[in-house]
Amino acid sequence: MTENSAHGLSLEDKASLTSGSDFWHSQAVAGIPSILLTDGPHGVRKQPEGGDALGLGQSIPATCFPPAVGLGSSWNLDLIRRVGEALGDEAKAEQVSVLLGPGINIKRSPLCGRNFEYVSEDPFVSGRVAAALIIGIQSRGVGTSLKHFAANNQEHDRMRVSADIDERTLREIYLAGFEYAVTTAAPTTVMCSYNKINGVYASQNHWLLTEVLREQWGFDGLVVSDWGAVNDRVAAIAAGLDLEMPPSGADGQIVDAVRNGHLGESVVTTAAERVATLVDRTAGARIEGHTYDAANHHELARTAAAESAVLLENDGEILPLTPGGQTVAVIGEFACSPRYQGAGSSQVVPTTLDNALDAILAIAGSDRVTFAPGFTFDGTPDSDKVTEAVDAARRSDVAVLFLGLPSATESEGFDRSDIDLPADQIALLKAVHSANPNTVVVLSNGGVVSINPWRMYAAAILEGWLLGQAGGSAIADILFGLVNPSGHLTETIPLRLQDNPSYLHFPGSAQHVRYGEGLYVGYRYYDSVDHDVAYPFGFGRSYTTFAVTDTAITTGENSAEITVTVLNTGDRAGSTVVQVYVHDAGSAVDRPTQELKGFAKVHLEAGQSTTTTITLDPRAFSYWSAKDQDWAVEAGDYDVRVGFSSRDIATTDRITLPGNIGPRPLNAMSTIAEWFAHPVGGPVLGAAMAAAATEDSPPIAPELMAMAGSMPLGKLAAFGLGITQEQVAALVAATQRPQP
Amino acid sequence: MTENSAHGLSLEDKASLTSGSDFWHSQAVAGIPSILLTDGPHGVRKQPEGGDALGLGQSIPATCFPPAVGLGSSWNLDLIRRVGEALGDEAKAEQVSVLLGPGINIKRSPLCGRNFEYVSEDPFVSGRVAAALIIGIQSRGVGTSLKHFAANNQEHDRMRVSADIDERTLREIYLAGFEYAVTTAAPTTVMCSYNKINGVYASQNHWLLTEVLREQWGFDGLVVSDWGAVNDRVAAIAAGLDLEMPPSGADGQIVDAVRNGHLGESVVTTAAERVATLVDRTAGARIEGHTYDAANHHELARTAAAESAVLLENDGEILPLTPGGQTVAVIGEFACSPRYQGAGSSQVVPTTLDNALDAILAIAGSDRVTFAPGFTFDGTPDSDKVTEAVDAARRSDVAVLFLGLPSATESEGFDRSDIDLPADQIALLKAVHSANPNTVVVLSNGGVVSINPWRMYAAAILEGWLLGQAGGSAIADILFGLVNPSGHLTETIPLRLQDNPSYLHFPGSAQHVRYGEGLYVGYRYYDSVDHDVAYPFGFGRSYTTFAVTDTAITTGENSAEITVTVLNTGDRAGSTVVQVYVHDAGSAVDRPTQELKGFAKVHLEAGQSTTTTITLDPRAFSYWSAKDQDWAVEAGDYDVRVGFSSRDIATTDRITLPGNIGPRPLNAMSTIAEWFAHPVGGPVLGAAMAAAATEDSPPIAPELMAMAGSMPLGKLAAFGLGITQEQVAALVAATQRPQP
Repeated sequence: MTENSAHGLSLEDKASLTSGSDFWHSQAVAGIPSILLTDGPHGVRKQPEGGDALGLGQSIPATCFPPAVGLGSSWNLDLIRRVGEALGDEAKAEQVSVLLGPGINIKRSPLCGRNFEYVSEDPFVSGRVAAALIIGIQSRGVGTSLKHFAANNQEHDRMRVSADIDERTLREIYLAGFEYAVTTAAPTTVMCSYNKINGVYASQNHWLLTEVLREQWGFDGLVVSDWGAVNDRVAAIAAGLDLEMPPSGADGQIVDAVRNGHLGESVVTTAAERVATLVDRTAGARIEGHTYDAANHHELARTAAAESAVLLENDGEILPLTPGGQTVAVIGEFACSPRYQGAGSSQVVPTTLDNALDAILAIAGSDRVTFAPGFTFDGTPDSDKVTEAVDAARRSDVAVLFLGLPSATESEGFDRSDIDLPADQIALLKAVHSANPNTVVVLSNGGVVSINPWRMYAAAILEGWLLGQAGGSAIADILFGLVNPSGHLTETIPLRLQDNPSYLHFPGSAQHVRYGEGLYVGYRYYDSVDHDVAYPFGFGRSYTTFAVTDTAITTGENSAEITVTVLNTGDRAGSTVVQVYVHDAGSAVDRPTQELKGFAKVHLEAGQSTTTTITLDPRAFSYWSAKDQDWAVEAGDYDVRVGFSSRDIATTDRITLPGNIGPRPLNAMSTIAEWFAHPVGGPVLGAAMAAAATEDSPPIAPELMAMAGSMPLGKLAAFGLGITQEQVAALVAATQRPQP
Repeated sequence: MTENSAHGLSLEDKASLTSGSDFWHSQAVAGIPSILLTDGPHGVRKQPEGGDALGLGQSIPATCFPPAVGLGSSWNLDLIRRVGEALGDEAKAEQVSVLLGPGINIKRSPLCGRNFEYVSEDPFVSGRVAAALIIGIQSRGVGTSLKHFAANNQEHDRMRVSADIDERTLREIYLAGFEYAVTTAAPTTVMCSYNKINGVYASQNHWLLTEVLREQWGFDGLVVSDWGAVNDRVAAIAAGLDLEMPPSGADGQIVDAVRNGHLGESVVTTAAERVATLVDRTAGARIEGHTYDAANHHELARTAAAESAVLLENDGEILPLTPGGQTVAVIGEFACSPRYQGAGSSQVVPTTLDNALDAILAIAGSDRVTFAPGFTFDGTPDSDKVTEAVDAARRSDVAVLFLGLPSATESEGFDRSDIDLPADQIALLKAVHSANPNTVVVLSNGGVVSINPWRMYAAAILEGWLLGQAGGSAIADILFGLVNPSGHLTETIPLRLQDNPSYLHFPGSAQHVRYGEGLYVGYRYYDSVDHDVAYPFGFGRSYTTFAVTDTAITTGENSAEITVTVLNTGDRAGSTVVQVYVHDAGSAVDRPTQELKGFAKVHLEAGQSTTTTITLDPRAFSYWSAKDQDWAVEAGDYDVRVGFSSRDIATTDRITLPGNIGPRPLNAMSTIAEWFAHPVGGPVLGAAMAAAATEDSPPIAPELMAMAGSMPLGKLAAFGLGITQEQVAALVAATQRPQP
């Protein structure tokens, strides 16, 4: 490996290193080579030479794996790592040094137009999925870019809006997934987002890019701008933004700022050095002659897609269908024109593209399958198409309807305004269902859609998300039981859009979006207020059934190890996701009623059982204490809940932890309740009150005692309630003496 | 009137004037007399000489009018003013110079322990009620103290907690009622609250006490501390706190601060001068020999109580009962031991106390009434009492159950932890109802209780709140139809506590409470997300029925006058509350779906109709623009909704207003959507694009157009999308030229 370095370069050369040479390349400076960065969380989007700058839809073919909305739903970190390895191989074959992903912004609202590129409403699963992908990709020498850092949870006004979020919410929800991926998987780069955070652009946010990311998390890679995210070149490099993409031609501003004393040259040296280090670290990606087997990758994409779909309903076990058994009416344009990825910068040109209709024909036999398109993607009601579909359904044993969101409704760059399926599709479903109640719905959608309004017209519902180029065949595999579905939801499906906790605070106005719901995002809200949902976080059905038959817990110093025994209680092999939620049973701070802190995907043959061990480290019990600027574990009881969704808890075990924060020092503004709860202050105050009761001063009247818990001790003096300011001061001093 | 003045006094004398001489008096200094301030939003709580400082429950008898929770529910501003006049007369008779009320903190959560002292979840009605009371009290020469300023919406940790609220929410929700009362009724004093606002104690909050209150609202009275609210004497007086109560003995700190240059002497002079002015302004209160007729005031208290109760249910018109008609089982300890006010500093010793049982006996005749206590206030189930009550119910035509919250559950100083009636009372209700379905429930409670869990066991429900010393007879008047109920809810009754928008953000922790729900308090939330409620804001039944038969609107410059014709469609005289809600039909900013902006209480004989005119000034259509630091009216369409509750809208009229904010100037960070929407920028950009289309540069690709609306024009250059930074600058310049 060459050891590139920016040390010894001229100021101008160093400044040049900190921006690209064109839309997709870094600059070659003084022997440090230019490297290629391309889009691609779920596939390599490398443009051919000579295209326009953005070149959407014109890239070199690459395997289109399931976008994050699908892949995350597999909850299978081993599988996700293997997808990462394949992505790394493809990038390497194309001499791509950095693949610009993964993206793990939190799905705060189902409306966010880019939710298909993100993993979850939960930072725990987001962080694990990102780490697995990064480890996979980087194992091939290819760099990654963890994005969009941070709080880029909407497309509306994304280049200007200030995400106004309190620090604890930032730390626990919006940064936690990034923190896990950075500290455990060391992505070569982190990509800053377009938006502001609490009034400061992410690209110019020293707290975010330097204090949190580097000083607290120990990140030693490079920070690259999202494309066009830099608004002030000098402020950005000073904040910790190392590489501006694409170049704005403002490198001279950096040189000038150093020359006129507004910017330290060491800042530029450091940024340039990080570019040089990135070039070094990705040298493995530029080894020539690397190839990959596209057919193998397609098979991996099919496996990943099949693990990503989520079976939501299966009344009377209508699924799986029998190959060569029932006659099937395949209805819906999505069956032959699949939606398999979202629009925008992540759009890959696939190496091949399966569709469900062909796959069903292959499995069921063409004599047993009728196809009717049913609707058009433009949403115009078409009674002829409906009639044709209803006829097909009536003449078949089963109708399988492929419904979903047309591609025009979901894209990078704008948010949705509702979560409903198009009205013409719901009308079609009703008509088909009344012709044949054996109606199965397969969904294609990048963001959550409401299901409750039409749930009663479907005997089974398979949430097919956007599943990449092999999604069509994967869906057929599931429908006919060649694969047992095992995807679980990484986001709640609400009854109504209005139920979402961000509903009234999304996407904001006047260039500000208030994260009013705070910590209570997704299931953290629904579960804390016990709000009905259509399908809870973590939910997913299988063609078999599972039970947790035993849990055993060993506690350590603010940690715990849970050994869970899971049994496949059905008659078919399958996989499930065992989930661990932690509930703080006696918290003195506001906390969500439970939070995901562990999971394991388990595969079991029919009747088989296995034990799996899930470790909860101190972070599993922590909250962010803004006062301490650290993670705090309260002493006390915690419930460890093990189950198959946030609403399907099989076992609950209570443990007691010592915590990592001692009692707070008392002062005159500590309340009477705090005094009595304090191990030293309680006895001191109690003794003083006992002594005073024998003297002349009146004791606190009984009707005041109920009011007194919230009253600072020192305020009693102001009310003349039997204590003086001097006595309060003496009590405070007494608590500060060494205790016996 | 003496003209007192602090000018010419020594620094020490001026400092002395700025704190009290004892718990309830200002200091007499250099000929400026001491004046007496006493508690008393709904009655005068003057302590006899020689009691202890707080002296709860030991004051001189005075008429106990309905607390604010009741009086506000009358929506009768004329009646409220008359109650104010009576309060003024009683204060004057006791030589009370300042009566410490009214209190109009917003009922953010039903759990707030002091909600019985406050008016509403809505600032519009809160402000009107406060103004009417202030005008009434001050008409007698007695001063008032509008409290607790501001954001003191909970008792938990009230002396330390920081209410963390964005400015727009503060202005529109938590300050708006104060603003109205200050600007229209000029209270002689405003009382600062205990808590912090965004980290700064209200007592030391210069923005609040000086910039907002005095400079923006024009308040020229005195700011007094809530009792014990001062934490830093010098910081408080510098912020605009004029009078510290009770005295902490720290006047010397003020003298020292002036002497060592940390505080300008003019600040002290101003505060002392305001004390002197207060003494002048309340001179009328100290005219000796003033008396009042306690019997008359009791009658007024009875009238007020009868207008305050809210009839929630009346299945099959079981009410009113017929005097001398049905036999009645009166059940429940509250019938003879009424709860008529809340605990804490507002607790009045009444001149007399009616109870409902005696009043019912008087109306119905003692031979027709059986009484059974049914339960005890300590919540211990008592099967003998239940049996006795059930027997009484079975033997009577009608059972009237007096249920409610025992006094120990509601008080100043602490918040409730739930909104449920005691379980033993609900069990009693079920038992009584199964013995006699003709069961009427009368409630006594200061804060909202959940009704849905037991709604099915009551044929009628009368929400009796806390109604003051004549509440018992007023309830009997309503039950027997001597008075037709006309109270309407000033707060939503939710289905469940968890439905309340502040539920997850109340009362906070770690000395902070995040007002996460922002503007969406009470019905502003429930209506904006279309959430089911038990009883909506503004709701109230009558023994007759009303209809809005016509509305006519005249619009002015950002104002409107609504003429409403209301008809009594029933066969009995009665009163109702006509309410006007405004909906911004095309808002570019986040707004509640509707807000109360006008109301009128109307009394009509059977079959009679009347027209009433309600004026909506520009404030009715405004939101607070933090950017402009002013109230802004958007140009566009507004719906004016007239009805009898927030969910019972009779007529909707659309009006169009010019607004008071012009188009914002465009710049390079203005989005493409903003450019096209701009009256000058739209044509300029359109022309430039048309011209460019004839040249060589590629037009924006269609798949990017959907993404482009949210993109700043200047960012197009960064993406190489057919425009340069220089061209953007030229376009911006073109919009700034004078237009033809």
